[in-house]
Amino acid sequence: MSARETATATTPSQSTPQFGPAAYRNRPGRPAVTVGIVGATGYAGGELVRLLLNHPNVKLVGLYGRNRDNVPVADSHPHLRESGLLIDQAVPEADAVFTALPHGVAAGMAAEIVGRGSALLDIGPDFRLHDPADYPTWYKFDHPAPELLAQAVYGLPELHRDEMRAAAGRPVTVVGLPGCYPTATILTLAPLARAGLIADLAVDAKSGVSGAGREARADLLFSEVNESVKAYGLFNHRHTAEMEQELQQQGELGPLASRDANPGVATVDFLPHLIPMTRGILTSCHVRTTRPVSQSELDALYAEAYSDEPFVKVMAEPPSTKHVFGSNLCRICVKVDPRSGRVLAIGAIDNLVKGAAGQAVQALNVVFGLPETTGLEQYPLAP
Amino acid sequence: MSARETATATTPSQSTPQFGPAAYRNRPGRPAVTVGIVGATGYAGGELVRLLLNHPNVKLVGLYGRNRDNVPVADSHPHLRESGLLIDQAVPEADAVFTALPHGVAAGMAAEIVGRGSALLDIGPDFRLHDPADYPTWYKFDHPAPELLAQAVYGLPELHRDEMRAAAGRPVTVVGLPGCYPTATILTLAPLARAGLIADLAVDAKSGVSGAGREARADLLFSEVNESVKAYGLFNHRHTAEMEQELQQQGELGPLASRDANPGVATVDFLPHLIPMTRGILTSCHVRTTRPVSQSELDALYAEAYSDEPFVKVMAEPPSTKHVFGSNLCRICVKVDPRSGRVLAIGAIDNLVKGAAGQAVQALNVVFGLPETTGLEQYPLAP
Amino acid sequence: MSARETATATTPSQSTPQFGPAAYRNRPGRPAVTVGIVGATGYAGGELVRLLLNHPNVKLVGLYGRNRDNVPVADSHPHLRESGLLIDQAVPEADAVFTALPHGVAAGMAAEIVGRGSALLDIGPDFRLHDPADYPTWYKFDHPAPELLAQAVYGLPELHRDEMRAAAGRPVTVVGLPGCYPTATILTLAPLARAGLIADLAVDAKSGVSGAGREARADLLFSEVNESVKAYGLFNHRHTAEMEQELQQQGELGPLASRDANPGVATVDFLPHLIPMTRGILTSCHVRTTRPVSQSELDALYAEAYSDEPFVKVMAEPPSTKHVFGSNLCRICVKVDPRSGRVLAIGAIDNLVKGAAGQAVQALNVVFGLPETTGLEQYPLAP
Amino acid sequence: MSARETATATTPSQSTPQFGPAAYRNRPGRPAVTVGIVGATGYAGGELVRLLLNHPNVKLVGLYGRNRDNVPVADSHPHLRESGLLIDQAVPEADAVFTALPHGVAAGMAAEIVGRGSALLDIGPDFRLHDPADYPTWYKFDHPAPELLAQAVYGLPELHRDEMRAAAGRPVTVVGLPGCYPTATILTLAPLARAGLIADLAVDAKSGVSGAGREARADLLFSEVNESVKAYGLFNHRHTAEMEQELQQQGELGPLASRDANPGVATVDFLPHLIPMTRGILTSCHVRTTRPVSQSELDALYAEAYSDEPFVKVMAEPPSTKHVFGSNLCRICVKVDPRSGRVLAIGAIDNLVKGAAGQAVQALNVVFGLPETTGLEQYPLAP
Repeated sequence: MSARETATATTPSQSTPQFGPAAYRNRPGRPAVTVGIVGATGYAGGELVRLLLNHPNVKLVGLYGRNRDNVPVADSHPHLRESGLLIDQAVPEADAVFTALPHGVAAGMAAEIVGRGSALLDIGPDFRLHDPADYPTWYKFDHPAPELLAQAVYGLPELHRDEMRAAAGRPVTVVGLPGCYPTATILTLAPLARAGLIADLAVDAKSGVSGAGREARADLLFSEVNESVKAYGLFNHRHTAEMEQELQQQGELGPLASRDANPGVATVDFLPHLIPMTRGILTSCHVRTTRPVSQSELDALYAEAYSDEPFVKVMAEPPSTKHVFGSNLCRICVKVDPRSGRVLAIGAIDNLVKGAAGQAVQALNVVFGLPETTGLEQYPLAP
Repeated sequence: MSARETATATTPSQSTPQFGPAAYRNRPGRPAVTVGIVGATGYAGGELVRLLLNHPNVKLVGLYGRNRDNVPVADSHPHLRESGLLIDQAVPEADAVFTALPHGVAAGMAAEIVGRGSALLDIGPDFRLHDPADYPTWYKFDHPAPELLAQAVYGLPELHRDEMRAAAGRPVTVVGLPGCYPTATILTLAPLARAGLIADLAVDAKSGVSGAGREARADLLFSEVNESVKAYGLFNHRHTAEMEQELQQQGELGPLASRDANPGVATVDFLPHLIPMTRGILTSCHVRTTRPVSQSELDALYAEAYSDEPFVKVMAEPPSTKHVFGSNLCRICVKVDPRSGRVLAIGAIDNLVKGAAGQAVQALNVVFGLPETTGLEQYPLAP
Repeated sequence: MSARETATATTPSQSTPQFGPAAYRNRPGRPAVTVGIVGATGYAGGELVRLLLNHPNVKLVGLYGRNRDNVPVADSHPHLRESGLLIDQAVPEADAVFTALPHGVAAGMAAEIVGRGSALLDIGPDFRLHDPADYPTWYKFDHPAPELLAQAVYGLPELHRDEMRAAAGRPVTVVGLPGCYPTATILTLAPLARAGLIADLAVDAKSGVSGAGREARADLLFSEVNESVKAYGLFNHRHTAEMEQELQQQGELGPLASRDANPGVATVDFLPHLIPMTRGILTSCHVRTTRPVSQSELDALYAEAYSDEPFVKVMAEPPSTKHVFGSNLCRICVKVDPRSGRVLAIGAIDNLVKGAAGQAVQALNVVFGLPETTGLEQYPLAP
Repeated sequence: MSARETATATTPSQSTPQFGPAAYRNRPGRPAVTVGIVGATGYAGGELVRLLLNHPNVKLVGLYGRNRDNVPVADSHPHLRESGLLIDQAVPEADAVFTALPHGVAAGMAAEIVGRGSALLDIGPDFRLHDPADYPTWYKFDHPAPELLAQAVYGLPELHRDEMRAAAGRPVTVVGLPGCYPTATILTLAPLARAGLIADLAVDAKSGVSGAGREARADLLFSEVNESVKAYGLFNHRHTAEMEQELQQQGELGPLASRDANPGVATVDFLPHLIPMTRGILTSCHVRTTRPVSQSELDALYAEAYSDEPFVKVMAEPPSTKHVFGSNLCRICVKVDPRSGRVLAIGAIDNLVKGAAGQAVQALNVVFGLPETTGLEQYPLAP
């Protein structure tokens, strides 16, 4: 019996649960999707609250914070003071529960959440990697719920929309939402990967500091980060695993696999940088192609992939993160060098929106059958 | 007879000129090298003034600014107000004349300057590229002084120290000082290039905004640059030519040359980015090696190259630009990925010091036989 | 007969004009207020477009830019690329026309705009000061339309809501929208002024750089503004006149008037500063009171003034501009020093929203009888 | 017997101690002043190391850090990596010992330090306030060494140079170095205070984040501070006490004293702000004068006070902190408002140099009879 069948057997199959996609579909009038957030005090959690407060089909019914007992959300997020919301330590009973937690924590709470029928949408990494063995390798913990992991779908709607819809029809709905770097990088490279064009690849990404979270760390103090740039996470950034999983699924990364060190294993050369800004990720992908390509071929590939996507915008000029700030957009520019034949594919997102909370709302919309842009129509905010 | 006529009449051969390295060497007591700056109102010029004010063996005898008539330097550089220096439009008569000018301008003034015996140290690009044909290609102008260009030496002391010393012994001394991106990138890659290890290469660099100069441009306004990052100059940044010239001279960039688009032409895949900080360049060089290398081999290569260099520091951790800020240091970290065998070589400089004015002072020291660190001993300033 | 001639011929009295508040009220079904913007290429104009794109009862019918002929708005505002809007040089025919122009320009176009019945909402300063003589004094131009100025209302809804509504019922509707510094400062001080409590006053304000506009000025380059703070506009900032006009109207600024230099003239000691951020104004008002006040009296005064206001929030802690970023909120904190009896009143706004475009939308709502918060419900965006 | 006499009696009076000003003066050849730093891991400590490495008459003999055992200084200050210095936990035996410690700690170590003859120069607050009773009031601790406090001199050379020299001749030499805000504010106001011109006063100051120290605090994270400004420490910032002490000593702050709340007690209305930059303090002092003053009178007052001072520069234009960055300068601008008669006095310093480590070196020079600018000649670094 497979892990998935096991999981199905142990969930409330006989009757429709009180919460979750099925319950929502059966509810007369569909007044609103009830939503809870576990881990509302960090940056991604706060951004999610902000977006959901603006969502016309959602009712926020619970914000969970460890050891909090009806503490105003304003204590964590002064900008949301007027919402009047409170944070407590009851796991929310809701159609959808978002988790925004340190790695390993959501996996431990998942059974309780899905046991009520709630759809689990995890902003953290606990349900992103399909192979449980990747967790000890990249995250240094053994996955406590491999049977739930087996049912999880990778929540990047532009690549997995149908799987996400299908997951909503199952008794257990778990969405592992992509990391910020993978979101930008996978969207930027997917058309090339799908066309089998990637022979070699260097992904050089730059992130604002909010991506590092809200923990009081001396290396994230303003005085340390301001007026400085550095690379970090050389060769071992955890998001590498996601990029490899998804890009390999998109297409044959053939020549990438023929590493001298590890023949047969395709790897992504991923180097993240911390730069002195709060929000935004720019990923610059240096691609050696498997064969010569023309600009018009690239343009056609990307138009085909994204012209119907509401949140992915292909542009003729390299994007600035400023022009996606506060929005769920991913702006992409792809160019072939007439001199060398190399291809540059550059993508920009707001790491807290399309890279976290906005994508989570987009996934909610997909799972609950709402128009995908609901609550996410805001234009970017500049300057 | 004016000073200019005298200088011109007596140049080269017949007698020792009044100014320049030879004159300085023959001067009894060697009180100070007299120095002038043409183009003192920009950022590189201002930084050069600041450094030279602190140089114990230099006497600043003239600051040239177009259409300026004894204007206080404080009008351009309020931080240097207490120097009391003035800017006027007389080309300085001095042992060394620095030029910090838009491309094409220094080349037009060069004959006048070297005609007096002065050593010309050009911070701009007019004497960096050895092949005159590169100027119309990359800079869109025909070089007006190819005979001087033929005598110019590329002023990166760590690679061309002996040539620079030799140039000081010739009647005409012209130093084409490296650009900011090439300084960081060439120093970061030279040991790999020299060892013939570079099979393929992506150079992904990030610069502070001062590198774009001081012209009033709407795209460089604080409100546009702050809280944003973007790539620019795709495939056509002028500094690419320098990197290709110097890296190819260091060693065989073999596989690099076999581009599909242009067989036989080695190219560097260089992508610069503008990030929201004032000073600093970080260059991240993604290298596919020609053969497997170990970390200890890399360490040995870089130690051999740089252990005696006063300004190049090889480190075990990736450098932050904050830790070179205000200094002439170049910090480098080179690492091999145990998983893929790829090599990352990362370098950090202050673009206005080692990338411009500091390197200019270092070159001055080399050309005039002063200890190379004179006037450049300052530690970086942090935070 | 052109639209303009028709409009001019039929203005005021005889018949209802085609555009404007009266036309809108008489239109069956009230589908949307038609809106045009003159001066859409600057920061305030761009922010106004962004907000109006999100306004459910507004239809944007024209964006005017000098010498532009159907130029995509994305050329000026890349973040608004997906709106598909174009800028041309036809003065919009619309129920409401916003002007966001350098001083003196809107006043010159006003007759044409109001002649069609359009409500004129000027984000610039041309209709803020009631006394025409103040324009040559503070702005160095003679007001070209004093008869329109006489009909203009100062568009700060929290102080002049009834006058704004009344203006909407008149043949000519002109709203002079407040400046950014005055918005923050007047809201912060109005309850004290109204209570006659201000004996002396120092207003020390700090602004993000977007307040200085989008002109390419060398002193606004990132490299000049970053990592620096300075005061500017000592004793002559134009916004001083607005503050004096409005505060004096609120209440007796008695002791303020007894200046030694100019007996009988009340003045506001206003000092603005430029700080290295893009958006936001913080105004710190140091008040010497006319009599001792208690904290509870202050709390009561401010609660009475603002408890029903949707956009003014009185807080117990001093506000950060980060917590109003992107929103139409003004956050205020007022405290009495138990040691000295002095009062500090501190206010924070986003200078481009409550200080410009958001307030303009709020005024539109008031003038056209829409719920005042329509299109402005967004929470602040942080971090 | 007074506290000072007691202290004298208990110090090594019979013979010259091994360390300290007297020992230094008696040492043949005066090779170098030996210097130690207690608390070298914070920002002020790091800056002090940087400055002392550049000081020609100083030998750094010990860096103390709690619980450190020969840890490279680079662990705390990567920019100082090339110094090769180590930090350990031995209290340095040196002619001068700088302490840069949390309040209360230096006072506890002081007896040990001065007992060896070492001059104690405290960068922290433990020896700034003359009245021991001020410590429980402002710092919430009882001063553990009131007899040493009684011998301490306030180390602002521009005001107390003679006292500092006198202190160097006594058996116990303790210098309480001024805080950053007081340094800027007292220098900016001293000429007005001395002339009895201050009737009322609001001090509105803006500081870079390094002034808040290096502790890992969530409110000092880049993402919290960037793109934001806020006031803090309303009515209770500890530096207020210093300003009141020193300004009152300079002159009669008459009308200031007649507070309604506390008749007879002169208070300074001090409001500090945190702005998104690393270094720099700007203090804007809004002064109501006791009588009308002219600009020429102000100019004369400030010229008289500061024309011979090497580090205080009076300017016609309001200063930017950028133009003192990295230097020991204090730039001041003072202006009278022709309209109102009020006076604005604005001062700018680098909080880590003239506001901390630079001033400490200046004090060292005064105490040890070295030229006052030694090691501090660096021009500001801009942009």
